[in-house]
Amino acid sequence: MTLVWMVPATGLAAVLFALWLAQDVLKRDTGTPAMQEIAGMIFEGAMAFLSRQYRTIGILAVVTAVAVAVLVGSISDGVKPVLYDSANHQLTFSPEVVVGRWQEGLLTGIAFLVGAMCSGLAGYIGMFIAVRSNVRTAAAAQKSLKDAVTVSLRGGAVSGFLVVALSLLGVSGIFLVYSRILDHPPEIAPFLIVGFGFGASFVALFAQLGGGIYTKAADVGADLVGKVEAGIPEDDPRNAAVVADLVGDNVGDCAGRGADLFESMSAENIGAMILGVAIFSVTKNIEWIMFPLVLRSFGIIAAMAGLVSVPFFTDANPKSKQDPMTPLNYGYYVVSALSVIGLFIATKVMLGDAWYWFFFCGLIGIATGIAFVYITQYYTAGSWRPVQEIAEASRTGPATNIIIGTAVGFETTALTAIAIGLALIGAFALGSQADISPAIPPFTTGIFGTAVATMGMLMSAAYILSMDTFGPITDNAGGITEMSGAPESAREITDKLDAVGNTTKALTKGYAVASAGLAAFLLFSAYLDKVKERLEIPLTAELPIDLSKVDVFVGGLLGAMLVFLFSSLAIRAVGNAAGAIIEEVRRQFRSDPGIMAGTSRPDYAAAVDITAKAALREMVLPGILAVSMPVAVGLIFRYARHESVVTTLNGVTYTAHNASGWLAVSGTLIIGTIVGILMATVLNNGGGAWDNAKKFIESGGLKDEKGNTLGKGSEPHKAAVVGDTVGDPFKDTAGPSLHVLIKLLATITLVLAPLFIKSGSVTKTGTPTAQPGTTIEQQVPDLASHQTLQDTAQEAIAP
Amino acid sequence: MTLVWMVPATGLAAVLFALWLAQDVLKRDTGTPAMQEIAGMIFEGAMAFLSRQYRTIGILAVVTAVAVAVLVGSISDGVKPVLYDSANHQLTFSPEVVVGRWQEGLLTGIAFLVGAMCSGLAGYIGMFIAVRSNVRTAAAAQKSLKDAVTVSLRGGAVSGFLVVALSLLGVSGIFLVYSRILDHPPEIAPFLIVGFGFGASFVALFAQLGGGIYTKAADVGADLVGKVEAGIPEDDPRNAAVVADLVGDNVGDCAGRGADLFESMSAENIGAMILGVAIFSVTKNIEWIMFPLVLRSFGIIAAMAGLVSVPFFTDANPKSKQDPMTPLNYGYYVVSALSVIGLFIATKVMLGDAWYWFFFCGLIGIATGIAFVYITQYYTAGSWRPVQEIAEASRTGPATNIIIGTAVGFETTALTAIAIGLALIGAFALGSQADISPAIPPFTTGIFGTAVATMGMLMSAAYILSMDTFGPITDNAGGITEMSGAPESAREITDKLDAVGNTTKALTKGYAVASAGLAAFLLFSAYLDKVKERLEIPLTAELPIDLSKVDVFVGGLLGAMLVFLFSSLAIRAVGNAAGAIIEEVRRQFRSDPGIMAGTSRPDYAAAVDITAKAALREMVLPGILAVSMPVAVGLIFRYARHESVVTTLNGVTYTAHNASGWLAVSGTLIIGTIVGILMATVLNNGGGAWDNAKKFIESGGLKDEKGNTLGKGSEPHKAAVVGDTVGDPFKDTAGPSLHVLIKLLATITLVLAPLFIKSGSVTKTGTPTAQPGTTIEQQVPDLASHQTLQDTAQEAIAP
Repeated sequence: MTLVWMVPATGLAAVLFALWLAQDVLKRDTGTPAMQEIAGMIFEGAMAFLSRQYRTIGILAVVTAVAVAVLVGSISDGVKPVLYDSANHQLTFSPEVVVGRWQEGLLTGIAFLVGAMCSGLAGYIGMFIAVRSNVRTAAAAQKSLKDAVTVSLRGGAVSGFLVVALSLLGVSGIFLVYSRILDHPPEIAPFLIVGFGFGASFVALFAQLGGGIYTKAADVGADLVGKVEAGIPEDDPRNAAVVADLVGDNVGDCAGRGADLFESMSAENIGAMILGVAIFSVTKNIEWIMFPLVLRSFGIIAAMAGLVSVPFFTDANPKSKQDPMTPLNYGYYVVSALSVIGLFIATKVMLGDAWYWFFFCGLIGIATGIAFVYITQYYTAGSWRPVQEIAEASRTGPATNIIIGTAVGFETTALTAIAIGLALIGAFALGSQADISPAIPPFTTGIFGTAVATMGMLMSAAYILSMDTFGPITDNAGGITEMSGAPESAREITDKLDAVGNTTKALTKGYAVASAGLAAFLLFSAYLDKVKERLEIPLTAELPIDLSKVDVFVGGLLGAMLVFLFSSLAIRAVGNAAGAIIEEVRRQFRSDPGIMAGTSRPDYAAAVDITAKAALREMVLPGILAVSMPVAVGLIFRYARHESVVTTLNGVTYTAHNASGWLAVSGTLIIGTIVGILMATVLNNGGGAWDNAKKFIESGGLKDEKGNTLGKGSEPHKAAVVGDTVGDPFKDTAGPSLHVLIKLLATITLVLAPLFIKSGSVTKTGTPTAQPGTTIEQQVPDLASHQTLQDTAQEAIAP
Repeated sequence: MTLVWMVPATGLAAVLFALWLAQDVLKRDTGTPAMQEIAGMIFEGAMAFLSRQYRTIGILAVVTAVAVAVLVGSISDGVKPVLYDSANHQLTFSPEVVVGRWQEGLLTGIAFLVGAMCSGLAGYIGMFIAVRSNVRTAAAAQKSLKDAVTVSLRGGAVSGFLVVALSLLGVSGIFLVYSRILDHPPEIAPFLIVGFGFGASFVALFAQLGGGIYTKAADVGADLVGKVEAGIPEDDPRNAAVVADLVGDNVGDCAGRGADLFESMSAENIGAMILGVAIFSVTKNIEWIMFPLVLRSFGIIAAMAGLVSVPFFTDANPKSKQDPMTPLNYGYYVVSALSVIGLFIATKVMLGDAWYWFFFCGLIGIATGIAFVYITQYYTAGSWRPVQEIAEASRTGPATNIIIGTAVGFETTALTAIAIGLALIGAFALGSQADISPAIPPFTTGIFGTAVATMGMLMSAAYILSMDTFGPITDNAGGITEMSGAPESAREITDKLDAVGNTTKALTKGYAVASAGLAAFLLFSAYLDKVKERLEIPLTAELPIDLSKVDVFVGGLLGAMLVFLFSSLAIRAVGNAAGAIIEEVRRQFRSDPGIMAGTSRPDYAAAVDITAKAALREMVLPGILAVSMPVAVGLIFRYARHESVVTTLNGVTYTAHNASGWLAVSGTLIIGTIVGILMATVLNNGGGAWDNAKKFIESGGLKDEKGNTLGKGSEPHKAAVVGDTVGDPFKDTAGPSLHVLIKLLATITLVLAPLFIKSGSVTKTGTPTAQPGTTIEQQVPDLASHQTLQDTAQEAIAP
């Protein structure tokens, strides 16, 4: 327990840090009255949407929490503790129920609500500061680039650190309550808090969907009705949808991505704790369960140091006065370097004699994070082949722009899959070398290795999220500067910041996909541990999810299909919501000709309101699909099919009858995850590349045969605008929502696993045999009093 | 052997039928001299491309055949016969090698070449007739619709029946040679002829890629340089690329799709025969191996009757004089009805007492074929919501057209996945009810059930292919009519036929995807049977391909990625090749101003030649990726990782050590297949919907607020043209190539399985126990002399 004190300490430190940043930002200059007026409208619109959105989500969450509690309560058998049978070196389950099924349901429901609330709180406070930082950034941009960077980065960091802190405090707090205060054994508490992850995913799904639909509907709608139909420039104050567009940047990129990473961290943390249970049950060393929390605490320290270091790099490096991305990158290297040190301390102190294997696993995670920075930049930045290829293709019109853009988007899956594959194989292979005890097979430590890699990667989450929220703040600052008629010099600074913001937003999405990929295996294994726990099969037994079984295959086919259908609904939702805005702006142009003349002000609030309503309406269908499909697959297969699964451990053969429900769900979960990761990559990077191909042309990168620049307004530029518009719902609605879908699949199946499992469906045959490795020395502490020897191996539990 | 005589009989009948149709078509009127001149150019261009393409493919195929023979010869252990241990009711392997490894390599290489040659021959002859039918259809269109339908359908049927006949004769012929003439036991012959399937897939991959790239490069190139740049209409004789475009229709849709379905039928037939081996080994009833061949013979009869019936429906139904699709649909119902009768006879006579279960499986296959006719039409025909939605979205420009088109494309996966899932589960569940012998577990008969469903669906292949080739013939006839200045009435008839051709082409693609989906399971199981055969694990043991093993997961991730990357390369290839054509046409316009003025004729042959060169160059990279990636995955995992797989049958536990190679390949194969099916659906149907949204607008389906038609030349129409152009490489290059990729994955892994398997890597423990069901009466014939009892169960084969 040496380092566990760090968890509350760093959690509180992160909150205080965020509060300090918040008051620092809030006390700064709020600019001219014109700026304040526009910022006020954005603030009102954003908070109004957020309140309404969270009200809707709140109602859905309470209904779901009650449904989960009732379902788990009525279907579960209650929780039995995991025991270590030291004579046979294997894990078994006690026949006594330590948590009754209704209590289990209640605890799961409460955990769901706490997770949902923490996620909502983090999003709300972060947004509150972000939509107050934008005008201060605009004001600072009238002074200097450095001031503007400081304000926007600090404003973004409020959101970043609050999200991480609330996730850490939430998970550790509910774990503390369920294990210490309610006095449940520490090896079952992780199973009780999975509801927290589900709650966080649930909120994230709707936050990301609603926010993503809002932001792109407003963006596409404003562009189509303004730039295309009316022929007025972007962010022109005569366009009634322009404030909605600026509001959208916040609700999509800030609140949506915050909720996305909140649930990533929470779900993966809980999953890693579940994987630690198997090792804890043997070693009785609680560090295996607490390790993920401690590692994240080190991550917070590293992220704080990294963020504080950014201004120094700005001062030290004259080049960074030109390109604000450079100091941000240096800051990330500081975070990575400090993460390595933290990882070293945490693994050395907590993970016993074989710690170094897990240290290397963590290194793989950190390295994967850095690799994705480069992969994402290669595919989405104007300096490399992919974006330039799209810009080139724009010469022959929008069709070739789209064709090559699609080809680039598809292509990005290659490096992504190879990097994730290498990281998974590497972490698994290293982890499986760790010899902790003969009762712990290599695949258990191997999977724990992938969990350490995931947690290692997520150490930098607070910093990454700060950079991400930097994006909408600078985007907004640009809009405010434009609309308030600020001087050209300020606009130049905000343009520069905006370009950096686009890069950081793309990086965060790459980071989210990579972490989802690394975590896929850990979350799937946590689900299987939950299934084993329900079936009372030892956690160290391998439970084969056999792809050659038709149930797994069809479950997987449906999981892959879910990704496509969900993306389809999300993309279409943007189209539908954009239609609503376009009609409203047209109506305003018609009813008041003074708007176009610039003599009367359009009704921005009406456009904001209509966008909000449309986005909330449109988020329901994809959201319900995502939540209901895995449940439907599990229930249908549970009752319609009767496949069996056989596994053998130490001479005892376990046959799980009627296993089709959880088998099919396994297929849906894992193949849905694989396809989801790749599709999210395609949509995020394809969209980003289209966006930057347009910017590449705007910045004069394309020339005709005679060497004249083909810039804004040229035919290739028009073609590139089409690509950019197509990419918008891909990269900011469907893609990011897919990250959440993947995690939701994991958490929903984890929580509702009992629904898909026929209880008492396992028969056991054979006598336990002594393991080959019994002579190897091991670290089992003297806690034998806590262990009971089970002699039920020969007994058939069900006929 | 009661019905096996039908196989050569119907095969020859189909060849004779095709020859009769060919001479009927060839003796018809070849139209005006202007028509003949254009048709001559198309003929020359098409045959020149085909010769050059098959020369390239031929070289690649010979190299690959030698490589396969050497690889298999040097790595394999040779083939051991499957034995039935009747005392323990289980299948085992004889220790004696009946086919030495070098002989195995040689036979596999020869089978590869025979498969490749049959595929090439079918494509070549079919094309030869198709490019002679087009001008005759154009001539007939000057007389009547009915004449034009008859010529084009008969011309198409030459290709359709030849493809099916050559596949049937090829597979049965090589099986006959390898089993009877070379005197190998019939239970190992199916494993020896897998090379035939690989050869067919290999040719199909390059034929479809090369043809697909050619056709769309010519199409996109001709449109961009003609319609967009020069402002001249489609098929205008001043456009140098216009003949290349007409050539492209033939090499893509006719030769490409023919090769695609040739290998589908061949590979699935061989796969089904392999699955029959397990049942044959127990029952000693050769019908289980011959059944797929016989069922296809009935299919040929049904298809002939259906084709012959079409003119009657044209006469009988006055409505069909307007819409030629109606009699074609009636013909398909005739085929389906006769297939049911054939299925009944074949199952009843050949499949023993439990025949009716397999009859129902076959019915599911036939029903799935019909279901996909409706699913494809719903998503790609102008009469329903999806296409109309895209047309509506074109009002706000190309961006929204693309956004909604993408959403529709993604959406089409839902019904596809559900239909395939239902069919697979249904066929498997029914098949597993068939109680043939206690030694044959339900999962073996279940998988055989899915094979029967696949073969049932493929019974109509000859008819479907005839309808498919109808497409390019009528398309060409339209072009010839336009270019030769034929009267308006003829153009109206060819326009009508062209619209039907578009539908039949879309239907064929839906059919190909559905059959790939149904066959996925059967081909995967055949691969696992091959692995079991190599590992000397009984064919009736389940070999779990455990998704929770990191090797399977990463193999699957790479398989899914392969689908995206391959699509990316195929799509980009079209862009690159189109660029080459555009430059050539521009060069001709520049160097001879008389072309634009209409006074001099452009150099069509030069454009044809450049397109051919570009297409052949561009097909190499995606082709090599497809072939090398599964091999690379298998070899890397074989040497880098050392996972084990355990399975137990009748008390004997088999542990396969060093299984990572074939495990990872299993993941690549099956998840690549799942994603490939869905992605092909997206690309085919999305592209079809875009195409028909444009046609919907052209036919006056879209009106403005005042009720005026927004037809050709309107802004929405321009937007729809962008969507159509984007859809071209999707639906005619990448999508169809993905069908082939899926099958190639299956055949390449089947043939090269020994490469991924460390021989002698299985240890056996335990004593065989008598099966619970030994008292059940069974049909084992008196062939005990052929069986040897194996007592090696306790012996560890490898240390």
